[in-house]
Amino acid sequence: MSLAQVQNFAISLDGFGTGEGLSRDRPFGHADERLHEWMFKTRWWRERTGRQGGTGGIDDALVRQHDTGIGAEIMGAGKYGFPGWQDDPDWKGWWGSSPPFHTPVFVLTHHIRPPIEMEGGTTFHFIDASPAEALAMAREAAKGQGVRIGGGATVVRDFFAAGLVDHAHVAVVPILLGRGVRLWDGLEALEHSYEIEAVSSPSRVTHLTFTRRGL
Amino acid sequence: MSLAQVQNFAISLDGFGTGEGLSRDRPFGHADERLHEWMFKTRWWRERTGRQGGTGGIDDALVRQHDTGIGAEIMGAGKYGFPGWQDDPDWKGWWGSSPPFHTPVFVLTHHIRPPIEMEGGTTFHFIDASPAEALAMAREAAKGQGVRIGGGATVVRDFFAAGLVDHAHVAVVPILLGRGVRLWDGLEALEHSYEIEAVSSPSRVTHLTFTRRGL
Repeated sequence: MSLAQVQNFAISLDGFGTGEGLSRDRPFGHADERLHEWMFKTRWWRERTGRQGGTGGIDDALVRQHDTGIGAEIMGAGKYGFPGWQDDPDWKGWWGSSPPFHTPVFVLTHHIRPPIEMEGGTTFHFIDASPAEALAMAREAAKGQGVRIGGGATVVRDFFAAGLVDHAHVAVVPILLGRGVRLWDGLEALEHSYEIEAVSSPSRVTHLTFTRRGL
Repeated sequence: MSLAQVQNFAISLDGFGTGEGLSRDRPFGHADERLHEWMFKTRWWRERTGRQGGTGGIDDALVRQHDTGIGAEIMGAGKYGFPGWQDDPDWKGWWGSSPPFHTPVFVLTHHIRPPIEMEGGTTFHFIDASPAEALAMAREAAKGQGVRIGGGATVVRDFFAAGLVDHAHVAVVPILLGRGVRLWDGLEALEHSYEIEAVSSPSRVTHLTFTRRGL
């Protein structure tokens, strides 16, 4: 079965998946990189960025799953680019010429454009679709592997609300952002549908995993 | 030094300290007792309620601190009674004739009334005061011991916002309430003022502790 998975999605203690004031210079707004510092310290991240060292504990074990068993990603327009990228015909995402996805990536947007093939196996497809429609397309493209629900917060929330997430890993970072985009809004009683585990790390991040009941 | 302490304050994953629709029959609204079930399973709780058994792990170790070193409590009108208790001259709180506080308790309300002396050492004092004023009164009554900031969510938030909390223990319960009173609103960057630890329990609750920097 091709599972729909949320991976390494970081939120603040007060539940914000990104900050306020997103721009080309500040992709996460006033949150900047504070939601992801724990990840930058892992061995996995350092390997990806051509360096040595890094932590090999629970944070690393969880983030490392990013690279295995995924055949496609779905992301929101707000992850793909800064507010207004739709008006920039040359925008190809934040990730340079060889994005770290290495699969088809379906970008949810009301402004569709032709696909963009990048180096390293990533192709961006721009689709105007419901979560269920997008997941059906991504599953077909994934050829039996899993589909990553890549975020941002609004997209993760929408897929949870539609009952389409099979497994999720959410990292709660001990900072209070105070403003931004909340992950959990409108998901009352989600615990009825998921087995929820929590494990705190010496990095002070708490990892939550959600496994859909009855999988 | 007489520390101002938040103890055993439970919130949902989405940050609500109580539910919606509080009433005399449903003191926590639609949350009912779901934020506190983990606590009811501890040895500490069972001892308090005249029973045997219960868990003796991390949950128990943390809740057990409730009983030591506290000389007074401050609570909000919403913890003391149901919406409208101010119009009921006979209302003496939820806790029967011998409340579990055993100290002076300062109830923040705009409707003051004479103190009520209960069995077992609890006396309810009704005061219309700012957080700082209330804390000064409670510290004097505590005679050198600590002051518990007893909640509800609004009161804990107000004391955090005023910079008056020295230590806090917040238990995050893996349920999503979706609505109610949020604990964290308006507390952006609280991590600059507190050392924050997180420890997850086999009960699936994650305990957060906040220790004011420079204490």
